[in-house]
Amino acid sequence: MRRALLAAKKAGEKGEVPIGCVIVKDGKVVSSAGNARESKKNALHHAEILAIDKACKKLGGWRLWECEMYVTLEPCPMCCGAIINSRIRKVHIAARDPKAGAMGSVVDLCEYPFNHKPEVEFGLMEKESQALLQSFFRALRDKKK
Amino acid sequence: MRRALLAAKKAGEKGEVPIGCVIVKDGKVVSSAGNARESKKNALHHAEILAIDKACKKLGGWRLWECEMYVTLEPCPMCCGAIINSRIRKVHIAARDPKAGAMGSVVDLCEYPFNHKPEVEFGLMEKESQALLQSFFRALRDKKK
Repeated sequence: MRRALLAAKKAGEKGEVPIGCVIVKDGKVVSSAGNARESKKNALHHAEILAIDKACKKLGGWRLWECEMYVTLEPCPMCCGAIINSRIRKVHIAARDPKAGAMGSVVDLCEYPFNHKPEVEFGLMEKESQALLQSFFRALRDKKK
Repeated sequence: MRRALLAAKKAGEKGEVPIGCVIVKDGKVVSSAGNARESKKNALHHAEILAIDKACKKLGGWRLWECEMYVTLEPCPMCCGAIINSRIRKVHIAARDPKAGAMGSVVDLCEYPFNHKPEVEFGLMEKESQALLQSFFRALRDKKK
């Protein structure tokens, strides 16, 4: 999660909402990405999607059975759907997202009978992720004043 | 929808599940794609994601407010989430997907309070899409025998 937070911080420095994601297999980092929606002007460029894309390319297949994901904010429906589609085994989430979270907050897609159910664990470095997001939005509000 | 079915058919000829998608703005086609999950070995390469990606690149922004999507099969959670995230105005769906559909069949993501609710219309060229999918899966089963 430390690496995911680092990717989040880097995204924040580029003016993106600071969210980061790392995919790990056998204890080794397969891919890592930060949110890049604004800079890439692309609705799909969430950290999780970018990390899954890199992992599929690196591992040469669309099934990431043996991979675990570390992500600093609860995935949205698109990213949770991508996690289900790519068969990621386990997802470690730092902070919950009450506005768009699709792994328990707004909806829990893992409760529905799709063809894969990842394990989900919340809370690892939750405070650090929340602090990073809060300071980003505070700075944004100050700028607008 | 005719163009989306053509993209679906082309995908099927390459051994992909025949699903196609077209994005339209002001009555003109902005992007078009067929499912390419197997050939690209990538969990993200559903027709809708590829079409949204192309449309964002072409229109130079992540919000596709004025766009409508025509898709031959009901979007999965990932693709429905991508539709919400990209703010697509209306989605025309040919056939329902009882196994993975996220716009009414397994779950209806548009019922939840996310920050965008696309209009949804089912049934346009439904029979043609169903026939295409059925003949693809029949051929697949015959091959396995």
